[in-house]
Amino acid sequence: MTTIDLNSDLGEGYGAWTMGDDTAMLDVVSSANIACGFHAGDPTIMLATSRAAAERGVAVGAHVAYRDLAGFGRRPVSVTPDELHADVVHQLGAMLATAHVAGTRITYVKPHGALYNTACADPVQAEAVTRAVADVDPTLAVLALPGSELLLAAERHGLRAVSEAFADRAYEPDGSLVARSRPGSVLHDPDQVAARVLRMVTDGVATAVDGSEVQVRADSVCVHGDSPSAVAMAQAICTLLTAQGITIAPFSS
Amino acid sequence: MTTIDLNSDLGEGYGAWTMGDDTAMLDVVSSANIACGFHAGDPTIMLATSRAAAERGVAVGAHVAYRDLAGFGRRPVSVTPDELHADVVHQLGAMLATAHVAGTRITYVKPHGALYNTACADPVQAEAVTRAVADVDPTLAVLALPGSELLLAAERHGLRAVSEAFADRAYEPDGSLVARSRPGSVLHDPDQVAARVLRMVTDGVATAVDGSEVQVRADSVCVHGDSPSAVAMAQAICTLLTAQGITIAPFSS
Amino acid sequence: MTTIDLNSDLGEGYGAWTMGDDTAMLDVVSSANIACGFHAGDPTIMLATSRAAAERGVAVGAHVAYRDLAGFGRRPVSVTPDELHADVVHQLGAMLATAHVAGTRITYVKPHGALYNTACADPVQAEAVTRAVADVDPTLAVLALPGSELLLAAERHGLRAVSEAFADRAYEPDGSLVARSRPGSVLHDPDQVAARVLRMVTDGVATAVDGSEVQVRADSVCVHGDSPSAVAMAQAICTLLTAQGITIAPFSS
Amino acid sequence: MTTIDLNSDLGEGYGAWTMGDDTAMLDVVSSANIACGFHAGDPTIMLATSRAAAERGVAVGAHVAYRDLAGFGRRPVSVTPDELHADVVHQLGAMLATAHVAGTRITYVKPHGALYNTACADPVQAEAVTRAVADVDPTLAVLALPGSELLLAAERHGLRAVSEAFADRAYEPDGSLVARSRPGSVLHDPDQVAARVLRMVTDGVATAVDGSEVQVRADSVCVHGDSPSAVAMAQAICTLLTAQGITIAPFSS
Repeated sequence: MTTIDLNSDLGEGYGAWTMGDDTAMLDVVSSANIACGFHAGDPTIMLATSRAAAERGVAVGAHVAYRDLAGFGRRPVSVTPDELHADVVHQLGAMLATAHVAGTRITYVKPHGALYNTACADPVQAEAVTRAVADVDPTLAVLALPGSELLLAAERHGLRAVSEAFADRAYEPDGSLVARSRPGSVLHDPDQVAARVLRMVTDGVATAVDGSEVQVRADSVCVHGDSPSAVAMAQAICTLLTAQGITIAPFSS
Repeated sequence: MTTIDLNSDLGEGYGAWTMGDDTAMLDVVSSANIACGFHAGDPTIMLATSRAAAERGVAVGAHVAYRDLAGFGRRPVSVTPDELHADVVHQLGAMLATAHVAGTRITYVKPHGALYNTACADPVQAEAVTRAVADVDPTLAVLALPGSELLLAAERHGLRAVSEAFADRAYEPDGSLVARSRPGSVLHDPDQVAARVLRMVTDGVATAVDGSEVQVRADSVCVHGDSPSAVAMAQAICTLLTAQGITIAPFSS
Repeated sequence: MTTIDLNSDLGEGYGAWTMGDDTAMLDVVSSANIACGFHAGDPTIMLATSRAAAERGVAVGAHVAYRDLAGFGRRPVSVTPDELHADVVHQLGAMLATAHVAGTRITYVKPHGALYNTACADPVQAEAVTRAVADVDPTLAVLALPGSELLLAAERHGLRAVSEAFADRAYEPDGSLVARSRPGSVLHDPDQVAARVLRMVTDGVATAVDGSEVQVRADSVCVHGDSPSAVAMAQAICTLLTAQGITIAPFSS
Repeated sequence: MTTIDLNSDLGEGYGAWTMGDDTAMLDVVSSANIACGFHAGDPTIMLATSRAAAERGVAVGAHVAYRDLAGFGRRPVSVTPDELHADVVHQLGAMLATAHVAGTRITYVKPHGALYNTACADPVQAEAVTRAVADVDPTLAVLALPGSELLLAAERHGLRAVSEAFADRAYEPDGSLVARSRPGSVLHDPDQVAARVLRMVTDGVATAVDGSEVQVRADSVCVHGDSPSAVAMAQAICTLLTAQGITIAPFSS
């Protein structure tokens, strides 16, 4: 029987502000990337989101980021490797304790936004992030793009490296993502996206932006939670996969 | 042989800003209350301070606070008990992981500034703080004023309650501190302060502001680190106690 | 012909986060209380909101607050009068320049959340706020509860004091607001609220929470912008008043 | 009679933290670049620094920066031109009102740290900064490196462009600054620096890092305020220039 993990960025509110419909997403996905307070998420939201995930048996990961509330972690910040290491240690610690108090535990780390992009491409930042993970808890997995510097660094540190695909992003023929700045880089139709995810899971392929077939092997599929159609898209994926006998479950289970 | 713990607030810089001479203080005290990022301290400073404490065998405590960088944690903030609980969980987790990476571990919690005052006097905030400590790690001690609501709440949660005295603060005849707003509330002469601490440690008494004797029993003596004469005062205390055959060592050892 | 001003709190997003439907509200109200960055609002949002107000001929006010993004300005912060004075000067200056660049100008100041409540009740904080307004620009009006310490202080400083009523809040028989913690303190039915505002405007009275009549004279009526029914409520008020021949226009015009 | 302006970065504390000895520097320099709250400086410090400058007849400039307290504005932040424009408008407005309340007025703008470097080299960021200055107050001067994109953009907007030299920085033969990462990039000896400034002012030349002569024409000389020897260096410059009959006065006077 085939099993696939669906992960989504959750707990991305701050104080009085909310982002997306976390409750609806938690009813669909199997892994929750929970913001750790640097790009979004305050301690109260982190704890509430951890509890809501724990109640539903959803796995919890630390969604670490650059310290940039004003930019939602989407802007590269020039931090030194040692600062980045300390920043990730800090976020992991806060998330570990919060998950523990919520009656669960974090099983993986996934960088957010600009840090995801940078750590996937830059071996220096990849090393700083994975050194922090290994220093804090070497049983944690690292979730990122297949073949990325981040997953290579994770393997160097003896960490479990988990590949993810993106449900609603267009792919280049070489398996990289089409840049967000280009038209057609983000898909919006729930049924089209669901069919795409089904092919990724069953056949390990997707149709690239030029119409060719591209190999997309993943242990987890990222479903964005903050777009207007996020919940509809997640539900369409869940419905189609389940109808095809595919179980949605954490990669870490 | 008599042993006493000296504790001091350290790691209270932020980014490019510094506060006090941490290195000099770490050479004297036996317990470092390390700021956790809410009133002061960023991840890099937290890690560096933890490492410096670990190198010297100085015990490490989490110096948790209200989230108020602009006010250095000295202003009361009206947070709900659940927010305060989550805020303390967050800070403890960050500090636990940071200390672990620095090769040490935190052994106690001491609230800072306005949170210290409020949690010592208000049973609701005392309960929120100690519930967070018990939820995260019930082996952690809580350091506060003897007889305070905070230590009572710590005991209710089965936590070790550790009393502290203040080296440079004047006492009322009933054993409470003279309010900072009153003249003579803070002592500045290193020799006078050292002699005072010696009496606290050997006889368990101090001369109150009205000239009477007041009982001051403490497992730890707080030496402030950010006043102009902080280092001189800490060194005078250390020299006098050592000359009298008193060992300065963590209460947690 | 009767004229009334409707004011609403707008521009209360931050970075990637939004709060309410500013565009829909700006199509209805005549005065926009724009957040100045201390409880909400960043420079980009401040400028965009000012421009949107200017395009519609909506008057612009500075919605000054305590510095508390995490608490959305709803928590009292113990600042000294001089700190509060400087904080308000800072926010007014930022808003003045922003409005100027947007092709408009601010005509009034209305404190937000906890600062509104404190400055209406506490003569010391009222004095600090109005001293800042008078120091920066004595042509600015101050908008607050009738009879409040804030309006008294405004008058002492020679500032125009403008009274406001609340469309969706229940009143005590003495004209004060029913505390939010009590049931029935906030009204939710758009038609009921609209009828209530019409009576306030035409007769200067409202039915108090005990069924008695209470005098409610106001130069402006506050319509909240962040509740789920905010836009429906604002539109119902606008429709009813307009149908009765009442013009909605800035008090400052 | 020769006149030269000495400018220094001041008001760079935050809350309880201080940076450098502002009072000693204000007794020497003629122009104070006052931090506007984005990299340092809070409203209370901005107002106190403005008042201290006003009392001494020291000219006041807005020291605008990227929003980055944690990095002291020294890290490039990837903001869009429109965000940067709004950020600078915000800072200028806050500083304009603060200076007005302090009984003075700002006469110029000088970007700080990473924004200084970026806006001097990148025409897009230079355009965003100078557009903000022109939008808020076209009588403000812009202070920056001679020949920089920032001064070119200032001139395009009809703003007064003012060139500055650096007292304690080594120069390349082409007139650019030796990168801080290279040895010998920063000079530390007060007498050597004072002699260097004298030659800049009287002859318009300096000895470059390779021993050659380089032309260094400036309307203002920047004296850093936060290094250990900052005050001694500023006083040595002041003493030598005054002894040579050179008047230290704001370029804007």
